[in-house]
Amino acid sequence: MEKMKRAERMVAITQVLMLKPNILTPLTLFAERFGTAKSTISEDLMAVKGSLLLSGQGHLETIPGAAGGVRYIPEIAKEEATQFLSKLAECLSNKERILAGGFLYMNDILFDPSVLRPLGLIFAGAFRDKKPDVVVTIETKGIPLALVTAEALGLPMVVIRSGNKVTEGSSVSINYVSGSSRRIQTMSLSRRALDPQRRVLVIDDFMKAGGTALGIKNLMSEFEANVVGIGVLVEAKITEDPKLVEGYLSLLQLRELDLHSGKMLVVPMDSL
Amino acid sequence: MEKMKRAERMVAITQVLMLKPNILTPLTLFAERFGTAKSTISEDLMAVKGSLLLSGQGHLETIPGAAGGVRYIPEIAKEEATQFLSKLAECLSNKERILAGGFLYMNDILFDPSVLRPLGLIFAGAFRDKKPDVVVTIETKGIPLALVTAEALGLPMVVIRSGNKVTEGSSVSINYVSGSSRRIQTMSLSRRALDPQRRVLVIDDFMKAGGTALGIKNLMSEFEANVVGIGVLVEAKITEDPKLVEGYLSLLQLRELDLHSGKMLVVPMDSL
Repeated sequence: MEKMKRAERMVAITQVLMLKPNILTPLTLFAERFGTAKSTISEDLMAVKGSLLLSGQGHLETIPGAAGGVRYIPEIAKEEATQFLSKLAECLSNKERILAGGFLYMNDILFDPSVLRPLGLIFAGAFRDKKPDVVVTIETKGIPLALVTAEALGLPMVVIRSGNKVTEGSSVSINYVSGSSRRIQTMSLSRRALDPQRRVLVIDDFMKAGGTALGIKNLMSEFEANVVGIGVLVEAKITEDPKLVEGYLSLLQLRELDLHSGKMLVVPMDSL
Repeated sequence: MEKMKRAERMVAITQVLMLKPNILTPLTLFAERFGTAKSTISEDLMAVKGSLLLSGQGHLETIPGAAGGVRYIPEIAKEEATQFLSKLAECLSNKERILAGGFLYMNDILFDPSVLRPLGLIFAGAFRDKKPDVVVTIETKGIPLALVTAEALGLPMVVIRSGNKVTEGSSVSINYVSGSSRRIQTMSLSRRALDPQRRVLVIDDFMKAGGTALGIKNLMSEFEANVVGIGVLVEAKITEDPKLVEGYLSLLQLRELDLHSGKMLVVPMDSL
């Protein structure tokens, strides 16, 4: 390869690091790839670091020493997050989203990568300090949200199955009462899906009474896991009943949903 | 903001475009943000474009004219894709992955963002020419794979539910025979989840006889959709029976899985 100029190397470095967020790349890899001295790469990195700092949308972290290197930590600027959640709340406050049974239609949001990506960054920013090892969710609608959060944190995801349909060897099942159906349900997780004593971040799309979140906490204790955080996209604040779990983070709150009057209100939380 | 130097702007432009893959950004946005002339931004973009071209891991596409702009098209280099699939096949060819009933344990792979991301780029590269409007999958295990493919293509995702548990208004259900259970099952999709006459790319994690894929095709015809491609991560080539669908792309092939002898072989396909 023809020798690259500094600006070209800086772009190439940015691309390599952004393609593998949270993963440490040794400086020697760049030095070899670009055919330059490690000290030159260090200078390139300083310049990239400075440029990214200005954006507030992710920064470089350098780890010194022989086992060190550099990694890209994806972020979302606070102002951008606030604006994004306001717009999302407005989009959800549409009476066409009211479904029979008093449910809120969110599938278009929950399955759209361009909406999910900022949500993953927001959850990651809120929970990075808790140092989770794994992001846990329950099928089905929470999966994409948990995945983007896991990626923003550089972690794997574990999906709890509803019911008993686990086909992955021995599993642990527990019963729980879901707030939306008020029925006793079962959730299961394969033994091999989660090592013991992990630090677990629970992510889900919706919380009504908190029965599912409580169920997940109980299931996690069967794996000796430590639930270090619970994040939900929307919590329902329609009744005054306290939730069955405490200390969760919700990004949006469903304040009103009335099938008859067509009244519908979702507001952003001041939680960030 | 202090005026940025060219190299700094190039890094900032790379970051902004990579954060929103496939989305067109007008040049005026950069000109305003950096306080420079549009002609300067054009020069910056030419330099960024050249630098990214060298990597083979994504390129810039510029659309001229008033409604034009620039976007980042994420890609994976062919050599990297081939190496990645070889390693993945090796990782899956582990007899510890054999589950009772002759199933292959893949959950750790299917729920790990660092494995999913390259897979999404591989599927996106294979199907971009077919110009799909939406990526469709069926719950549960195919969801993360479909999501990363959708993001790499800049498309939304639609998730078909197993059974009849759709709570999203009126829905369409069909019966199908899944190859793995040989039982009649049901899949459903909410009417509002998919507009008529879309160009659909179907993505799933595993194909045995192809019964699920055939079911999805039949369900899609109820939405007047045009299935422009079917991609699966692993197809089973254990029996000689032809599949129930044709023209699908599989990345890996399960050649052998024997519970008694512990023989297990997954190989990459030469499909790329």
